[in-house]
Amino acid sequence: MRAVVLHSHGGPEVLTIEEVADPVPGPDEVVVRIAATALNRADLLQRMGLYADPRGLAQEIPGLEFAGTVESVGERSRMWRVGDRVMGIEAGGAYAQRIATHERQLLAVPADIELVDAAAIPEVFLTAWDALVLQGGLTSGRWALVHAGASGVGTAAIQIAKAIGARVAVTVSAGKAALCRELGADLVLQRSPHDWLADATAAVGAGFDTVLDVIGGEEVDRNLQAVAPKGTIVQVGLMGGGRTQVNVGLLLTKRAHWVGTTLRTRPIEEKAAVTRKFAAEMLPLFGTGALRPVIDCRFPFEQIGEAHRLMESNANAGKIVIEMP
Amino acid sequence: MRAVVLHSHGGPEVLTIEEVADPVPGPDEVVVRIAATALNRADLLQRMGLYADPRGLAQEIPGLEFAGTVESVGERSRMWRVGDRVMGIEAGGAYAQRIATHERQLLAVPADIELVDAAAIPEVFLTAWDALVLQGGLTSGRWALVHAGASGVGTAAIQIAKAIGARVAVTVSAGKAALCRELGADLVLQRSPHDWLADATAAVGAGFDTVLDVIGGEEVDRNLQAVAPKGTIVQVGLMGGGRTQVNVGLLLTKRAHWVGTTLRTRPIEEKAAVTRKFAAEMLPLFGTGALRPVIDCRFPFEQIGEAHRLMESNANAGKIVIEMP
Repeated sequence: MRAVVLHSHGGPEVLTIEEVADPVPGPDEVVVRIAATALNRADLLQRMGLYADPRGLAQEIPGLEFAGTVESVGERSRMWRVGDRVMGIEAGGAYAQRIATHERQLLAVPADIELVDAAAIPEVFLTAWDALVLQGGLTSGRWALVHAGASGVGTAAIQIAKAIGARVAVTVSAGKAALCRELGADLVLQRSPHDWLADATAAVGAGFDTVLDVIGGEEVDRNLQAVAPKGTIVQVGLMGGGRTQVNVGLLLTKRAHWVGTTLRTRPIEEKAAVTRKFAAEMLPLFGTGALRPVIDCRFPFEQIGEAHRLMESNANAGKIVIEMP
Repeated sequence: MRAVVLHSHGGPEVLTIEEVADPVPGPDEVVVRIAATALNRADLLQRMGLYADPRGLAQEIPGLEFAGTVESVGERSRMWRVGDRVMGIEAGGAYAQRIATHERQLLAVPADIELVDAAAIPEVFLTAWDALVLQGGLTSGRWALVHAGASGVGTAAIQIAKAIGARVAVTVSAGKAALCRELGADLVLQRSPHDWLADATAAVGAGFDTVLDVIGGEEVDRNLQAVAPKGTIVQVGLMGGGRTQVNVGLLLTKRAHWVGTTLRTRPIEEKAAVTRKFAAEMLPLFGTGALRPVIDCRFPFEQIGEAHRLMESNANAGKIVIEMP
């Protein structure tokens, strides 16, 4: 099969496509013929040598999510049949025509969603839902604050918050407010250096029950000011930097929680558990129309370097999908 | 009755004893004739005007804990009888001969414990147990790290950790190691500027499941290094300062939790809930000898200023108890 194999780390030019051996399913695994994968910020870091695949495989194929059809199943696997439309996340290996994954990490692609578009679902919807609801305790009636509202995770987070009856404010960079409003955001704030905190506090005086932050850096201290008493800040990324000055006193007096989270490094049993819970609680909402993948654009596999350049420019709103040959 | 009333904030000299009106029990309240109160770090802050009683009463009487006998009960109160030996915490008002408190915030004084010694129990044992177990998730088999092991909260934390089958490391300032070892600490580390982190890592390579920190300041970043993957740092105080530089990346990659907590500002229903749970899960362990109050010294009420000076000098190990006339 064809796959991107990293032989060195650096710019988009290191993403070279070559012929590699097809994966063979383990006893509980399924091999998926990938129709499409999608980009994540973590892919850029991995390409630059800053975020290795935690499995440390001999051959480094990036790519965290995929959608496709079941091509073969392992001897103990009973959940899926050949030809089933599936999607999922993995710790790597999705920049390829085929991937082997544990059967309990797969999700059925909702009936009304095109297979290629489904590649835009798993990583951002699982991440946003796990962060907002499972880690962050968001429920109906409560207020969420989501940074980078027009990002993949941001667009998923807005929809999830609205779907469960919560209220949601987002911060966005210039030009991306309309998409967030269209997805249902109750409050759209311009991101730093604009003083979003003053605007947020004016609108939601009691503070935010759950803060979902992919930025870090200068937003960290503002998050501690924005979070409500007994609220939770969920740190999903650090695009703006990780070493920063904070006022720990706010954490104390507010009795707030600050939680770091990542899906990629979790052991198989945790990944399977969160995937099955997502299948029960979120997947049906794609059928009702409450949730939908938000796609900025599609690239053919051969132009994956161009796709990386687009994400690096921050010009996309929603997901960048890669169609496999 | 006689009580310390703060008319101004400052040094120990502002702690003047005067005659004030006796409290009258509300319908669900109990009036306790106080046999003894005990000092807490928060009292020093309050005296200096840095930590006000959250109830904002007209008359400012400090004092967060007490032990004594029930003197009268409100019309709806059914839990206690006049003469019962009780102890408890309040948001203030314990530097006095009497206090009115909600009946569900009171604990029975264990049979074998002298009433005056019981005043050393409520604040530190409730704080340490709530922080380690309820907020920090400590269980049997797991490792706790407790800063200031010879402090009131520290000595309670060591005993609680051992009583539930956990393992516990403490940091201490010079000269206080023996008390911690005697209480059962598995590992006693000299506090910063000594590099306790290197010693801790050498002994407990996988990191600490629960970190209980009353210090903050320069320990904050070391806590993030010391905590185990999926572990919890519980921030109970900030004696070393609150504004500090942290490496948020460690929170993220370890999927760690950092929780701020305080008992004093909690609403009545939360205080009652944690008190009743403590009564069920911890109080019996004073009867078995697994837990005991650790008392540095007793002062008569008239010398409460001297008692504050002792705590400010950091010379005490365990609690400073004040006997009421």
